[in-house]
Amino acid sequence: MKTFLGIDWGGTYIKAAVLDSKGKIYNKKVFASEELREKKVFIRTLKNFVASVQKFKLKGIGIGAPGIINIRRGFIYYLPNIPGWKNFPLKTILEKELKLPVFIDNDANVFALAEARLGAAKDVERAIFLTLGTGLGGAVIFNGRILEGEVSASEVGHVPLSIDGKLCGCGAKGCIETFVGNRYLLERYTHLKSNKGKASEVKEIFERAQAGEPEALIVWKEFSVALGKFLAGMINIFNPQKIVFGGGVSKAFSIFKPLVWQVIKKQAMWPQAKGVKLVRAKLKNAGVIGAALLAKENIGK
Amino acid sequence: MKTFLGIDWGGTYIKAAVLDSKGKIYNKKVFASEELREKKVFIRTLKNFVASVQKFKLKGIGIGAPGIINIRRGFIYYLPNIPGWKNFPLKTILEKELKLPVFIDNDANVFALAEARLGAAKDVERAIFLTLGTGLGGAVIFNGRILEGEVSASEVGHVPLSIDGKLCGCGAKGCIETFVGNRYLLERYTHLKSNKGKASEVKEIFERAQAGEPEALIVWKEFSVALGKFLAGMINIFNPQKIVFGGGVSKAFSIFKPLVWQVIKKQAMWPQAKGVKLVRAKLKNAGVIGAALLAKENIGK
Repeated sequence: MKTFLGIDWGGTYIKAAVLDSKGKIYNKKVFASEELREKKVFIRTLKNFVASVQKFKLKGIGIGAPGIINIRRGFIYYLPNIPGWKNFPLKTILEKELKLPVFIDNDANVFALAEARLGAAKDVERAIFLTLGTGLGGAVIFNGRILEGEVSASEVGHVPLSIDGKLCGCGAKGCIETFVGNRYLLERYTHLKSNKGKASEVKEIFERAQAGEPEALIVWKEFSVALGKFLAGMINIFNPQKIVFGGGVSKAFSIFKPLVWQVIKKQAMWPQAKGVKLVRAKLKNAGVIGAALLAKENIGK
Repeated sequence: MKTFLGIDWGGTYIKAAVLDSKGKIYNKKVFASEELREKKVFIRTLKNFVASVQKFKLKGIGIGAPGIINIRRGFIYYLPNIPGWKNFPLKTILEKELKLPVFIDNDANVFALAEARLGAAKDVERAIFLTLGTGLGGAVIFNGRILEGEVSASEVGHVPLSIDGKLCGCGAKGCIETFVGNRYLLERYTHLKSNKGKASEVKEIFERAQAGEPEALIVWKEFSVALGKFLAGMINIFNPQKIVFGGGVSKAFSIFKPLVWQVIKKQAMWPQAKGVKLVRAKLKNAGVIGAALLAKENIGK
């Protein structure tokens, strides 16, 4: 049996697991990201974990990192929410320390890889994956492979949907993320309630919309118009067979799916749109599974 | 020597040429599109041309068609500017009539193929190609291959850049085409001149901008903001090494290039944008060359 270490590096938790090539988990550990913020601690912790699972004779390590990566060199350009990791050659350093091949990609790509091989999109060649959360992460599987250049493209959350628009975390204006990101939905809801009622989580806006509250329904309506328009563009470019929704905000799928579909039908070109299905992500541990698959598929090359 | 028939099917002219695999033209004929509007006449004319170049012993035929194609089946969904060709199995019919393998793709993809193999982008793996004309045609070369699904994606001209925006020829609203298409530039110019001066061609707006006319400069400024924003999104998705501009409006390249670049620098993520070059298309007969290459590369499979 060949095993791989998959690391799902998130803003809150870092999950590390030993998996086989079918995505079965043999050993898993969760760390608080805050505690591994320092590079030295991060590397030492990984080293200890690898030593503790020595009996599995790991073939390699895959990492899904929350940022912009040079995937060929395993080099971190930057991690938007974790300062101190700018321009860091993580692959080179880890391979030296751990004596194992290491592969690093963007977390959205790694999530997409898991869902494409073992989850919601395992039966198709072309799919778009969105992680709806604080930001909008995204990835594309095209002809069965992650679409990426030298940099961990595709940063689909930073496609503009407006000539001006709100300032985005990336420094640009009017990115689709500023229409559908968690933070913007909460802000919009507070504004619509004229400060006479807040929501601290998107889940609440979802529940209130289910109960028929007009302001909550407006938030999802606007969210769906923006997401539908954006997806129409992606459909016109990629002619995908599926669009897979993951991330916390995708819990509201039952509310936004029919609305998004209506917008796509109007906005996308019909030969491109006719076959596409909107579905929810399936896997529970997509992060570690995708990271292990990243190692497996790269070693197989 | 292996030769192929390349057909560049445009709204005004249909060009047919015999080429070798290096893009050298041996025999060329130009037809008025209007005269070949009828399917029967189109097919008969092609048949006669193929008979007239019999001595070349053609290996196959490639066609760049102005519309939405199912590339696997060589099936025309529709041609926006040529009525009467909806849902037509052109490949099947031509192969029966001409006794030669026939391959059909969208004209923008065929143009991109020519420029990628023999023109402005022959040294790179990833490039975006735009044909700036009445509409905005586009294509993507990714890892050396045309990016396309089952349908002749990528219809990049129909990526929305606005939540609402102007009605586009495709039936949707706010597509990037409605910001940079020929027709919209002329309309905008007339509006800015308060109907006290018109331009009948985009070339005039270019010349007046070169002469320093304020209204003409505004047209190019707005054009560049929209094009730059749109391209920033494409750069964030595809991490291209080059963006190649073709089509009539690209004659104004010297005016819009620096403006577009300024917008890209602000809007795109720097790891994706740092290597990209904006260049003009190079080939004179990209349409027939690309069509011949389409046949060559598909027969080689």
